[in-house]
Amino acid sequence: MYCSFPALYTDHYELTMVAAALRSGVAERRAVFEVFTRSLPAGRAYGIVAGIDRVLDAVRRFHFTSTVVDHLTKMGIAKDPDVADWLSSYRFKGDIIGYPDGELFFPRSPILTVEGEFAECVVLETVVLSILNHDCAVASAAARMRSAAGNRIILEGGSRRTDPEAAVAAAKAAYIGGFDATSNLEAGRRWNIPTGGTASHAFVLAHNNECDAFTAQRNTLGEDSTYLVDTLDVDKAIHKAVEVVGSDIGAIRIDSGNLYNRSVEARALLDKLGASKCRIVVSGDLDEFKIAELEKKKAPVNAYLVGTNLVTGSGHPTASMVYKLVAISDCDDNKNSNPNSSMRSVGKLSAEKATIGGRKQALRTIDTDGFLLSETLQPANFEQPDSSYTEEGEASDFAGSIPANFEQPNSSYTPQVLMVSKGKVVYTSNTEAARQLCAKRLKTLQRCDRLVNPLNTPAVPTLWAGWDNEPNLENHDR
Amino acid sequence: MYCSFPALYTDHYELTMVAAALRSGVAERRAVFEVFTRSLPAGRAYGIVAGIDRVLDAVRRFHFTSTVVDHLTKMGIAKDPDVADWLSSYRFKGDIIGYPDGELFFPRSPILTVEGEFAECVVLETVVLSILNHDCAVASAAARMRSAAGNRIILEGGSRRTDPEAAVAAAKAAYIGGFDATSNLEAGRRWNIPTGGTASHAFVLAHNNECDAFTAQRNTLGEDSTYLVDTLDVDKAIHKAVEVVGSDIGAIRIDSGNLYNRSVEARALLDKLGASKCRIVVSGDLDEFKIAELEKKKAPVNAYLVGTNLVTGSGHPTASMVYKLVAISDCDDNKNSNPNSSMRSVGKLSAEKATIGGRKQALRTIDTDGFLLSETLQPANFEQPDSSYTEEGEASDFAGSIPANFEQPNSSYTPQVLMVSKGKVVYTSNTEAARQLCAKRLKTLQRCDRLVNPLNTPAVPTLWAGWDNEPNLENHDR
Repeated sequence: MYCSFPALYTDHYELTMVAAALRSGVAERRAVFEVFTRSLPAGRAYGIVAGIDRVLDAVRRFHFTSTVVDHLTKMGIAKDPDVADWLSSYRFKGDIIGYPDGELFFPRSPILTVEGEFAECVVLETVVLSILNHDCAVASAAARMRSAAGNRIILEGGSRRTDPEAAVAAAKAAYIGGFDATSNLEAGRRWNIPTGGTASHAFVLAHNNECDAFTAQRNTLGEDSTYLVDTLDVDKAIHKAVEVVGSDIGAIRIDSGNLYNRSVEARALLDKLGASKCRIVVSGDLDEFKIAELEKKKAPVNAYLVGTNLVTGSGHPTASMVYKLVAISDCDDNKNSNPNSSMRSVGKLSAEKATIGGRKQALRTIDTDGFLLSETLQPANFEQPDSSYTEEGEASDFAGSIPANFEQPNSSYTPQVLMVSKGKVVYTSNTEAARQLCAKRLKTLQRCDRLVNPLNTPAVPTLWAGWDNEPNLENHDR
Repeated sequence: MYCSFPALYTDHYELTMVAAALRSGVAERRAVFEVFTRSLPAGRAYGIVAGIDRVLDAVRRFHFTSTVVDHLTKMGIAKDPDVADWLSSYRFKGDIIGYPDGELFFPRSPILTVEGEFAECVVLETVVLSILNHDCAVASAAARMRSAAGNRIILEGGSRRTDPEAAVAAAKAAYIGGFDATSNLEAGRRWNIPTGGTASHAFVLAHNNECDAFTAQRNTLGEDSTYLVDTLDVDKAIHKAVEVVGSDIGAIRIDSGNLYNRSVEARALLDKLGASKCRIVVSGDLDEFKIAELEKKKAPVNAYLVGTNLVTGSGHPTASMVYKLVAISDCDDNKNSNPNSSMRSVGKLSAEKATIGGRKQALRTIDTDGFLLSETLQPANFEQPDSSYTEEGEASDFAGSIPANFEQPNSSYTPQVLMVSKGKVVYTSNTEAARQLCAKRLKTLQRCDRLVNPLNTPAVPTLWAGWDNEPNLENHDR
């Protein structure tokens, strides 16, 4: 079910760079790349990490089969035998440190740090960014919708509005962001996410009348099913549904019109007909703003079904993540010396797109009430690249259970976890744990208005500590 | 490289509907579904069809393996043995008529008509819409960018901004819409689309200085390569590039800043340095509007590289296609009678989302100057469902060469082609032919301003002819 050539989810220029770097000797230089976003979408106060699990899977499976190398040779991309050899023997052997799925991110958060030889790191750029830009965009939108929906059930049904494989990934990202279930059967199978759904308008129209359709649904799916009542006339359909199914009818769904008015009228009618336990599901171009409005007006809605606006990131279908070189060894041959001793920080100065050089370590501070105060970015210690990060054992523990001191008042934590060590994936992502982490993290932001953010400021500031020259963000951020 | 379970790119409710329809007898009723959009995105005058090739591939491979059926049984979705049997033996056996890749579409254009038994058609809904909503959105944006760029080269480089598999599909849709090449290697391999790319800022920064980087690139990729000059200082970098590569340097790329000013300054400097044949490639958050502005100001740009705004449909990442039941047989058992004799038109009346019942045949009229006048939708003849459409032979011919009478003055044509006949795919899509068709069709719209459309009206009107009750579009369109 997975696609089998992840090494071709790659931009042409990654391989021309490998070819040129092999010849110039730069290919083997020790390098550090970071994935981050320069800014959040307008009005957003935070983002949610998702896609780490897919990134690690892609890194694990990223290799060039002989079929692929032959193809690239034929295309002239790997015509140099040194390039073909390098591609044939490619396996990522470096280290990756990252923010787990479900974690918060802010502008400049180093959500993934990839360290290894320049060439082995650069070829991962496209697939890493593809996954993170998509999944983070969806999870970030999902978390806002989850927050807006309060304690109501919120369901994902946007598969038909995006590419089929993107839809499977979107269903997972939505679940991490707090959605309760998805319509997508492949997401259910692949990641054990709850799936749901009952009937469409076509089902109603295919029968001779609504009573026949509701009877067929009841006979097969039972009373505790969701009956679609807006194919023709909502009031009449509710009467028919309660008549056919009985007052124990599980739920009705309304997919069109003014959802506030229709839910209020439906609730009154259902109560009048004795179906006071019947739930009301609404759908139709919902987003976090429409959900918040229905919640504010106390619409009698039990569940929201969201499609288009979820899978398209609610106006921001890509998370603007970039993959930038931040440090490189000056020494071409680092095999016989300490590779970190000669690392230099690098960053481009391009107008409005400058990069802050140097590998970053993130530290978050929690106040006495348990709320997040800030994210501080410090220069990471190159001499002991792994010592300041979570050790392998902790990383594995982390996936299953969230360490006890998270969210403790007056504490601090690093969101960075060791994920790949010398090419070996040492971190196991877990969808349920990611979903729990996201829910816990959102609670630490509850002092911020998370839906509307006219000042365009992140929920907490990003602080820079320990830099020789404090980065001038006026010039660096766009 | 393809994913192997297309039958699970399906919403849960498609299978609960199959289960209920099998029990009520509706599963075997003859049914017609149509794919169309109720409206174009604000400001758009037309859309471009893409994804038909992927739809036909999905239909061909759409079956439920024993592994999948076992999974669905365990999940309770196929717990009824009749449902499990039906899924196990599923192969689409109906007919599909559609608009070819590269064809124009307008509001209500029936870009795909799926006819068969109700249950066999309904299960295709999610995967068909997923593909068409994604690919049509990208191709439509691509065609607008192609038009804005005039005769310049236009390159697709948005893979990193969308899900990896979506990126491969986007590269193809962009090529159909008129892009000249893609950065995506898998799209190159899978569909034989030209790929290109040379180097990123990381490549420059990984070397000790820009001269070293340019030298490495020249030694490997040659003089006729594209050198990235905005990592540090554009002017200095152009000097260095011409010094290192020589005045026969192929191209430079500028990825930041004011692209008009920078391209004018770069052109002057290159000419001064004797590199008058050096091309200028620009990139950085380009869309059709920014390209049009650069063209209007006669910026000395030779090629545009577009990423984010291409793969996200330039503000409209989904094409708003729906898959609606428009006709159904009243007769449960149609095996021994003429299934078409008792077909009735159906459409839902839901507020702002009503469907116009009845299968539609599309006819386009070309005026005496060769420009498109209108698209007329007529009721299709149910007694002879295939006779009014292109025959199998013509469909195959069509894929390779566009019939001579297309775009002839004072002529008419139907954009609908028979694609699947009794379950057999009889139409072969061809990416090059689709790209040519798109280019030809765009020429028939040249009387319309295709970029800015403040009146929000499609390029040509959709006319309704031959309906007993002319559809009231005031009530039907949203």
